[in-house]
Amino acid sequence: MVDLIRKKRDGQELSRAEIEALVLGYTRGQIPDYQAAAWLMAGLLRGFTRSETAALTDAMLRSGEVLDLSEFSSEKVDKHSTGGVGDKTSLVLAPVVAAGGLVVPMISGRGLGHTGGTLDKLESIPGFNVNLSVQEFRRVLRGCGCCMIGQTAEIAPADRKLYALRDVTGTVESPYLICASIMSKKLAEGIDALVLDVKTGSGAFMKKEEDAVFLAELMVETGERMGKKVVALITDMDQPLGLKVGNSLEVVEVLEILQGEGPPDLRELCLDLAGWMFQLGGVASSLHQGRQTAQQMIDSGRGLAKFREMVQLQGGDLSAIDDPNKLPRAKHTNEVHSPENGYVSAIACEAIGTACVILGGGREKKEDSVDPAVGIVLHKKVGDPVSAREPLATIHYNSESRAGRAKQLIQESYHISGAPPAQGRPLVHRVINGSGGKN
Amino acid sequence: MVDLIRKKRDGQELSRAEIEALVLGYTRGQIPDYQAAAWLMAGLLRGFTRSETAALTDAMLRSGEVLDLSEFSSEKVDKHSTGGVGDKTSLVLAPVVAAGGLVVPMISGRGLGHTGGTLDKLESIPGFNVNLSVQEFRRVLRGCGCCMIGQTAEIAPADRKLYALRDVTGTVESPYLICASIMSKKLAEGIDALVLDVKTGSGAFMKKEEDAVFLAELMVETGERMGKKVVALITDMDQPLGLKVGNSLEVVEVLEILQGEGPPDLRELCLDLAGWMFQLGGVASSLHQGRQTAQQMIDSGRGLAKFREMVQLQGGDLSAIDDPNKLPRAKHTNEVHSPENGYVSAIACEAIGTACVILGGGREKKEDSVDPAVGIVLHKKVGDPVSAREPLATIHYNSESRAGRAKQLIQESYHISGAPPAQGRPLVHRVINGSGGKN
Repeated sequence: MVDLIRKKRDGQELSRAEIEALVLGYTRGQIPDYQAAAWLMAGLLRGFTRSETAALTDAMLRSGEVLDLSEFSSEKVDKHSTGGVGDKTSLVLAPVVAAGGLVVPMISGRGLGHTGGTLDKLESIPGFNVNLSVQEFRRVLRGCGCCMIGQTAEIAPADRKLYALRDVTGTVESPYLICASIMSKKLAEGIDALVLDVKTGSGAFMKKEEDAVFLAELMVETGERMGKKVVALITDMDQPLGLKVGNSLEVVEVLEILQGEGPPDLRELCLDLAGWMFQLGGVASSLHQGRQTAQQMIDSGRGLAKFREMVQLQGGDLSAIDDPNKLPRAKHTNEVHSPENGYVSAIACEAIGTACVILGGGREKKEDSVDPAVGIVLHKKVGDPVSAREPLATIHYNSESRAGRAKQLIQESYHISGAPPAQGRPLVHRVINGSGGKN
Repeated sequence: MVDLIRKKRDGQELSRAEIEALVLGYTRGQIPDYQAAAWLMAGLLRGFTRSETAALTDAMLRSGEVLDLSEFSSEKVDKHSTGGVGDKTSLVLAPVVAAGGLVVPMISGRGLGHTGGTLDKLESIPGFNVNLSVQEFRRVLRGCGCCMIGQTAEIAPADRKLYALRDVTGTVESPYLICASIMSKKLAEGIDALVLDVKTGSGAFMKKEEDAVFLAELMVETGERMGKKVVALITDMDQPLGLKVGNSLEVVEVLEILQGEGPPDLRELCLDLAGWMFQLGGVASSLHQGRQTAQQMIDSGRGLAKFREMVQLQGGDLSAIDDPNKLPRAKHTNEVHSPENGYVSAIACEAIGTACVILGGGREKKEDSVDPAVGIVLHKKVGDPVSAREPLATIHYNSESRAGRAKQLIQESYHISGAPPAQGRPLVHRVINGSGGKN
């Protein structure tokens, strides 16, 4: 092991066999934490070749169970987002894409820091169970074509162990290690194709677009080296996506989209991501046709019907879907007003996410519990005109002291200027289209 | 701790307080191995500033007991070598410099790999005890002005713990960490001045002169920042020092030097190092005068008398000093012959050290025991003319199979050419003289 550490330290390339020995040795407890930590830091600072990254992904993937979903004749397609504020597209995509005939076996994560988590949003639906066994996962997929669960002990145990070590050794922020972590978990789902939503901007993990593009290209190439069809969209996270931030509030917005309503930015992104999923899954021959299919699933109500099926199969209370007033609601609301006339020139996106954490809607530490009811509803987004004293946002809260701190942070997040901003940022900055995406 | 790892990872400078918290936290077991390992790797790849290196040295030094030798009115001076093959100068210097009126409190190490260790050489003297308590160390210093022991539990425990971790995490080879390790142990001896012998060449840890100079400058500056007088000599280790390699054989050569005999290169280096020790210790006003003092200590027999005193005070058998035939002797000898007429153009120095390890005279792993009797006596050094079949070296051995492998390696180490080598390498390549050395 010391030789493998030295090799990476000195910038040499490790072979597939060496990386496999390292990953499996660590997962089985034969390599101690301190040697893995030194190797991770050497890797973070020296980087990895494309071939090493693929080998690392492959070894992590094969450290546990790789789902065999060959019983389903349709293509298995998933989407992964690097996380942001107000990003609830997964809850729209799974039912819409399943309604269009594909199978969506989606394993997601929880919120941490300023970013929300799909599992937390789903759990705001009373009774919804994200902790299914692989057998139950398969049963739900058979029942409705989509299923949304959390990581299980069987899937990519190497990633779980390595991530826990990275978290405490300052080795999270390596695009190569991030790529291997994401791709190993996603490819263990037994999928044929994957659409990646890599966020960039003030509310994203990758603030700089070049970093987002680098990670996206790495993930597309790694997925393709492993025989999967992969496309990555670099999308904007310089302001929250949609208007609602907070777990049950975001479920409400998902239902709006599934009913053909909801904010245009969220709807647009859902159509784009679903469009790519349909194209990669062979249901559509172009992004345009894929978007049309997605739109049809929404217009026909089949997407919403599929969402209801999934909620029911995963133990959720359908009455809360049919009457969102039955979803958890905060006791109080309070408005944040614009201090002046003008236009919203920017919204500090990470700060909005942090305000939601302050309200109790997210986690500072992994162990924290989450209040599903609290959150923020934005009334103004970048470019919107505002009058003095007009509400910018409404805070949904259960604690006065938390609300005060959150309110101040939201107030500071909004930048108002005299003239409208010159040009808005596009919703989709770029598409990183591997060879698989062109088929 | 994660913040300190990230800071070093991102190339930022850590404060003195941060480094102290880290070193003491790790030594006390409050910081786990895996975090220390990630930090060490980040430090190895990012490097440390001069100020960080001094802070690290200081924190490691103060992790344990710092000897207070103020009871001695003379200056306390020591020498440290980065290690090589046939380097037995410490055994000459301690008694010679003590005979000249200074106090030499010397804490040394054991051999590892191709390099020999002072403690192993001393232990070839029957009864000689290098494992003294701090109290006994002090008693011997009072008795004869010099004492040579191994690391104790009280001195720089942070270095012991960090070195053990570096050894298994590929983080040994950082000049900053090497500097802090050496200087913390040496300055814990309570010395006023230190002469560093930094070896360069094929048998040295630092093969390249620029690496040796870098480490030397770092150590000189670190020592001076800590208020000590420090000089470093960059000396040649492209062939073994002296003619004898192996523990009891080297003690024999030490006795030759102390009797005014012995090989000229070893004598020269001893005079230079002792000369600097005398100058830094205020006994001589120049290197030239310091060398003269050293020569007088040898010519008068006072150096040898001092060596006898020290051996006696540390439990060694004086009869083995007075009659070196009583030192451990190997059962067999065998000669390595020159294959042709010509001149010795080079000797692969590390290979000679390795040949000694093969004979049992050194260690491959720390846990290995050492045979004090075995070793190699060189008859020819670089530049010497040789005739075909003339002996190049004599192997002293206790195992036929080991002797065969060692013989082949020695044979391959000698390069014979038709003409004498153009110009020899100087014994002292350079002197790195801090401001303290000029006084």
